[in-house]
Parts: sequence; structure tokens; C-alpha cells
Amino acid sequence: MSELTAAPAATAWDGWLRGRAAVRAKRDMQRADSARADLYDLASNDYLGLSAHPLVRTAAINALCTVGAGASASRVASGTWGIHRELETALCDYTGRAQALVFSSGYTANLGVLGALGGPGSLFLLDAHAHASLIDGAKLSGAAWHSFEHNNLAAAEALLRANRDAPAPKPRVVLVLESIYSVLGDAAPLERAAALCAQYGALLLVDEAHSLAAVPGGSAVRAAGLEQAGHVLATATLSKALGAQGGVVLLGGPQAQLWREHLLNTARTFIFDTALAPAAAAGARAALDLATTERIAALAANTRLIRDTLAAHARLAGRIDPAAGAVQSVRMRTPGQAAAAAALLRERGCAVNCFRPPSVPDGISRLRLTAHAHHHPDTLAAVLETVARTIKEVES
Amino acid sequence: MSELTAAPAATAWDGWLRGRAAVRAKRDMQRADSARADLYDLASNDYLGLSAHPLVRTAAINALCTVGAGASASRVASGTWGIHRELETALCDYTGRAQALVFSSGYTANLGVLGALGGPGSLFLLDAHAHASLIDGAKLSGAAWHSFEHNNLAAAEALLRANRDAPAPKPRVVLVLESIYSVLGDAAPLERAAALCAQYGALLLVDEAHSLAAVPGGSAVRAAGLEQAGHVLATATLSKALGAQGGVVLLGGPQAQLWREHLLNTARTFIFDTALAPAAAAGARAALDLATTERIAALAANTRLIRDTLAAHARLAGRIDPAAGAVQSVRMRTPGQAAAAAALLRERGCAVNCFRPPSVPDGISRLRLTAHAHHHPDTLAAVLETVARTIKEVES
Ligand SMILES: Cc1ncc(COP(=O)(O)O)c(C=O)c1O
Ligand SMILES: Cc1ncc(COP(=O)(O)O)c(C=O)c1O
Repeated sequence: MSELTAAPAATAWDGWLRGRAAVRAKRDMQRADSARADLYDLASNDYLGLSAHPLVRTAAINALCTVGAGASASRVASGTWGIHRELETALCDYTGRAQALVFSSGYTANLGVLGALGGPGSLFLLDAHAHASLIDGAKLSGAAWHSFEHNNLAAAEALLRANRDAPAPKPRVVLVLESIYSVLGDAAPLERAAALCAQYGALLLVDEAHSLAAVPGGSAVRAAGLEQAGHVLATATLSKALGAQGGVVLLGGPQAQLWREHLLNTARTFIFDTALAPAAAAGARAALDLATTERIAALAANTRLIRDTLAAHARLAGRIDPAAGAVQSVRMRTPGQAAAAAALLRERGCAVNCFRPPSVPDGISRLRLTAHAHHHPDTLAAVLETVARTIKEVES
Repeated sequence: MSELTAAPAATAWDGWLRGRAAVRAKRDMQRADSARADLYDLASNDYLGLSAHPLVRTAAINALCTVGAGASASRVASGTWGIHRELETALCDYTGRAQALVFSSGYTANLGVLGALGGPGSLFLLDAHAHASLIDGAKLSGAAWHSFEHNNLAAAEALLRANRDAPAPKPRVVLVLESIYSVLGDAAPLERAAALCAQYGALLLVDEAHSLAAVPGGSAVRAAGLEQAGHVLATATLSKALGAQGGVVLLGGPQAQLWREHLLNTARTFIFDTALAPAAAAGARAALDLATTERIAALAANTRLIRDTLAAHARLAGRIDPAAGAVQSVRMRTPGQAAAAAALLRERGCAVNCFRPPSVPDGISRLRLTAHAHHHPDTLAAVLETVARTIKEVES
């Protein structure tokens, strides 16, 4: 074995690996999995603070004790437990939709649904700010796909029209949006998009990752009155406002059940993946009961508080991106200052996220402050003064 | 909104959806997510019975109470908790490897590592029986890829040689295998494959989904003496023998840390996915302590008991596939008889899996019986007589 366990002769891989590391170092683009510190949380996606809620915990413990730590198989083999079904029913009740299918993550839900809609005769039109999981899903699906300028429905319509006017065979089209974009926190015009899709016989797929249990009405699709529209499919994650792990595809309209069966039979990340752990399913199920109008209103109030407190500082007034959801971004002048401010805030006991190129589509570095429903406004206001002061420091 | 919520005019999608359902019905290939019944378990992947072990449960409950039901962010944002690190350390100790990176599932671990190794200059050579997640990972990676005949290393070598002898630029090659194949339960010749890869300057990627904590030594890579080989990367799932949820990439050799950093910076399913739920991480961590030599020996003994008890029936003697892991398959004569036997066994209180075309690469339908370490041999032997009798019934 010595020839194998000894350092192998330098191969093309060695040079490549070192080269990639050198590029990261040069661009100052090294990501790290640093330990989570006990900081004031303006960074996590646990919008409603439900991840550690006692009732969520109790529900998860019950599932652990009755089922176990894992689901032990794919759901189509022998892994569909009662808690999966209960969660799907509760998700339908919460969103007003007719059918739901739960996956092990939001990422695999997106891969699964796009794969199930894909194949040679399909065409996906993706907003340019679509999440990595949607892009990967489109690539994997075997469908043709294009992206169009962010939130420009006229651009999407031009593609739909070109497709309609092209000679047969015309592909089946899916327009792919996020209700609230993870990149800039802005919203998609769902009603107009749904009307456009209806007009062109296309499906609309909406990723509700940042709106489920986080916007008034609990779901952006429902708030737009689209929950019973058969041509509107949605995905969501259970790992953000619902504080757990997992993903879901939500369906409405008269063919909802047929769509669910189709997914169950064709979504590879459903069929060939172990089902969601029972504790996560039960936690998300309990969180749905706690994702009340009041908590969502408190989240919105704290989001406004973040915006207004920062905007009251002349230095920051014009630099705050309008946010449709709970993430408020502040444009920074340089990637270095963005990173320095985030690091200094960390030392000062506060966690904020920092987005720098190439993770930002417009090349502008940003601090991202995520609101949480359970933050007391007085404490939050005080922390925000520290944020403003810290930005001032790194910029002077 | 009525135009949207009313059943939309029939579109290309409606016809397509119905057409797909009709094909499934005609082929008798309808999958279902039927409720898990309380049956004698010869079907789940909870090989060591650890999913419901009190110590696993206690560890998971502790994590729920100290962290919460979810990790609340990607690990590169603010989602790396102490339990993720402890789990990675424990996985390294258990497998003898130098570095580990935990993902939210085995599926996303495979997508992530292949994506991180991919790109235009890479070539993946996949065994024809590679799991869906490996095939999807290869497709997504942007690398060129070929599959070669199952377990035929001569075929793999022919591809390696052709690549070496081709004019420059030569791609960087990864050979992709499973330690124990999920399809037929047979093993890959890991030592020979590793030597071959060393000879050609290729990497070897081994999916240990069905061997981690399930084969003597706890890991097939370690059993082959390859745990310190820098050119051997492995993935595994935490959802089978470890009874929880999650996936991991395991690395060894002098560049293990650089590889881990590379993954952390480039694996999209790591960067853009919420981290593994704390309860699942803690459960898998505790399961590692319980995945002892004794439990693994009991699993092997029960696997032999399944084989020997069934082979003692003249009708079945020649129809039992040799199994390297804990899954024993019995070849059935028709897909219909396979399904009928599984259904009848279900009525008789016993869960077995049934594989039919197109899920079997050789077109042969099979009953799959999965051994479990915690089954008492006497009960197991009695249940196996019921299995043999049931097969006889459906065949006569
Ligand atoms: C828009 C969007 N879609 C999908 C996902 C993936 O969800 P999950 O983390 O549950 O896999 C995320 C975030 O992680 C997201 O922001
Ligand atoms: C060989 C193999 N790789 C990967 C996976 C995926 O692992 P997980 O279910 O944890 O996503 C599985 C089974 O599900 C498998 O059998």
C-alpha cells in the first residue's frame, strides 16, 4: 500500500488545486466556516425566531422519540412517516394550496421540481437573480433555458412571444421567479407574471424561500390571490422563517393531485434521497402554528425600524436598498470597507452579513441586515446605532 | 383574479401531464408514498438500528435544546455550529481520514463535490451503476463524463489510457465508484481502482453511502488501507447506518485541508444551502460511537442468515445475488411476481423492497431484503421462512 498512501507524484490535480487557492487568495475571496458566535443576530434566516421556540422544540423531540433521528429511507421506499403527511397537510392549510410534497431541503425541492418539468420539450425562463438551486435545477433538467434581465417582465414576455411565434414544435414554457429575491431582497410582480403565463399557456414557478411565513398572509402566492391557480407552482424552504430544515413544492388548482403524483414519480431528488428527518418535519409543522399574523407584523415593524434608523443617518440615507422582505441591505463603497464593517461589528457583538462581488450581480458590495420578529425594538434601535457608527468609522 | 384562479384553458402542459400519467399507468410503474406501517423491517437503511437508539435520541434532543430545530443559515454565512465541527472531527476519527465537510444530505454532498471538481478541464468516469446523485453531479459539473461497464476496471483503464495518449490539453480525470452499489449490493475493487488512479494521475471518488458504519472497519476506504491516500476522496450519507440525515465529503493525505477549503469555496450545495439541522448532526455524531465492531459483526451475521436461510430452499438457491453489504437480493421471475410477493409480505407484517425495471439495470426484478444488526436471529429466521413461503405461493 505504500505507493498509495505516500504523497502521490504531482498530478494535474495538484497544480489545479493550488492554482485555485492562489486565485482565491489574490482576489481576497476566501470563504470560511467560522464558528457561530453568540452574537446579536442580524444575519440568520430564522426570521420569526421559531427555531428555538419551546413548542417547536417539543414537537421535534416528540418526533425524535416516536420515530427516531432519521427517516431511514426514501419516501417512495418505506420512508413516509405520519409526520411527513401532517406537515404537508399543514403547509396546504397555511398557504391555501391544494397539494404539497416535502423534500429534504429547499435546494433539492428546486432541483426536483425543475427536473420533473424538464426534458427535451421544455423551456425554462429564469430571472437573472434566480437562486443557485434554480439555476442548477434548470441545468440538470435537460430543458433549454434562458435567463432574462432581473424583474423585467417585458423581457420575459419577449421570450414568451418569440417562442409562441416560432415554428412547431414549440416547447412547453416555465417562467421561474423568486417571490422575494435572496440577492437584493426585492419582490417579483407575481400577479402580472401569472397573468402573462396564463396568456401564453406557460407555467409559473415561484420560489417562496424568503416569503413563506415571512410576508403578510404567510405566502406571497396567496397574497397575490394565486393559491388556486393551477398554472402556478411554488417551492419553499422550511429552513428560514420556519426555523427547521427541508423544502416543499406547493400546488393548486384542479390538477394539483396529478402534479403531485407526477413529482412523486419523476423528481429524482425525491425518489433517490432519504426523506426529511422526522424532527425537522415536526419542527416545521409546529412552527406553522406559530407563524401568526402578529409575529409576521412584528417582523415587518423591525424591518422598517432597521430602514428608518439607518436612513436617519445622512451618510446612509441614499444607500439603503428598498426591501420587500425582512432583509435590508446597505450599499458600501468598497468590498474592503464592507468586510471591515462586518468584522468590526462582529467584535462589537453583532452579526450582519456581507455580500461582495462576485456574489452580487451589480458589483456593489453590501451589508445585509436581517430583521427578526422577536427582537425588542429598543434593543434593536441601540444596536443599529452601533451599526451606523461602525460604518462611519470604516469609511473615515 | 377570476381569470387566473379559474381552470386555465388547456395548454401544452395539461396534455403533457396527462400523457405522462397514462404512460405510468400503462407500464404499471406508479410509485406511491404510502404510509409507513409498523412492520418487521427488512427494508429500511437503518442498518444498525441506531435511528431510534436512546443515546442518539438524547444527543439529538440536546442539540435541539441548545441550538434549535434548524441551523438558520448556510455554514459560510453564519450557520456553522459547534455540533457541525464535532461531527466532522468524529467522522475523521471514525474513518481515519484527515478532513471532513458535512452537507445537508448525501445527495447534496455528491452534487457538491462533483461540482467542485468539475468545469471544462475535467473528465469524470462513472461506473454504470452509479447512484442518481452521482450522475446528476456529473451532469451539473460542467465536466465531460462517460460511464463504463459496471465494475469493469479494464474498461475504466481503457478510458484512462485513451485520455493519457490523447493530444494535449488532457483533462484532469476522476474515477467515480460506490464502495457498495445501491443497485445490486456488490462491492467495487477499491484497492485496484486506487492503484489504477495513482498510475494515471487521476482522482478516485468513492461513495461510501452503503459502507460507512456498515462494513468491517467502519469504512470501505479504510478497510482497503486508503484512508491516507490523498488522491482518494470519499462521500457518505449520515442517513443510512448512522440513522440520521446529512452527507459528508471525507479527505485524506497531505492536501486534505486544501481540498476542504476548495470545497468550502466552490461546492454550490454547501455555500447556497442551509446547514444540516443540529439534531441530525448530533444524532449522527452519537451514532458513530455506537457503530461498534460488535454491531457491525451482528449486521454481517444477520446478512449471512438471510442468505443461508433463503438458499436452503431449493427454489431460491440459485437466485440469490452475492451481497457485499447488508442488502440481499433475490431474483424474481417476473415484475408482477416481485410486486405480488412484496405486497403479500406486507400483509403478513414484513417490509421488503421490490426493484423492478426500469430501476434495475439488467432488467431482472428483485426482492431486496435489508439486514439489521438489532434483529434477533431466531425471529429473523422465522420471518425468512415466511418470505420463502410467500415467494413460493406467488410463483405457483
Ligand atoms: C431563494 C432560495 N431558494 C432556495 C434555497 C435553498 O433552501 P435550503 O437552504 O432549505 O436548501 C435558498 C436558501 O438557502 C434560497 O435563498
Ligand atoms: C449510493 C448512494 N449515494 C447517495 C445517496 C443519497 O444519500 P441521502 O439519502 O443522504 O441524500 C444514496 C441514498 O439515498 C445512495 O444509495
